[in-house]
Amino acid sequence: MERIVEQGLLYDFYGELLTDHQRRIYEDVVLNDLSLSEIAETEGISRQGVHDIVRRCDKTLSEYEEKLGLVKKFEETRKMVSEIEELAGEFRSSGDMDLIDRIEQISEDIVNI
Amino acid sequence: MERIVEQGLLYDFYGELLTDHQRRIYEDVVLNDLSLSEIAETEGISRQGVHDIVRRCDKTLSEYEEKLGLVKKFEETRKMVSEIEELAGEFRSSGDMDLIDRIEQISEDIVNI
Repeated sequence: MERIVEQGLLYDFYGELLTDHQRRIYEDVVLNDLSLSEIAETEGISRQGVHDIVRRCDKTLSEYEEKLGLVKKFEETRKMVSEIEELAGEFRSSGDMDLIDRIEQISEDIVNI
Repeated sequence: MERIVEQGLLYDFYGELLTDHQRRIYEDVVLNDLSLSEIAETEGISRQGVHDIVRRCDKTLSEYEEKLGLVKKFEETRKMVSEIEELAGEFRSSGDMDLIDRIEQISEDIVNI
């Protein structure tokens, strides 16, 4: 997964566990794509300081994911649901009832995850 | 939601964030349904001590859910997927193509959650 996408996902799930200060800086870097220098100036800290905070946040967010694995769990579910959507589209053109079986099976698998 | 089910769900999602000691006791109470007295004896602490640990764990787990809301998010998804499963079953007996539309719509909604 692309680094920035992964950071965004981890932040989306666990960002609330960072401090307000960390979140503000992490959002500016990862979501708002501001440069370290810009942020350093606004926050009145060094470029290196901003860099360190981002690295610390990355580490914290990764540790939560390592423990909880909820991003992974969600991504798996999302992928399975995408497959359902695709199968429904295929069914529309083919009318193949096996596709309905598969939709039911995948739904059941997700519910039992 | 029934209290014990809610505790189990919260523990399932966030249990890894408790200490080993907390987890052992919480599992004994919530998952293994042991009595406070039994656990107190095994752990060599008072019944009140066990009770306090369970209460502390409940509080910690609830605070994580309050911040992250991932149990809620997951339960919503699971409910929507159950609906897909049901609609596929209905389609099997009715052949109504509107049900396929709804399956596609719900899948799309989940993917975009």
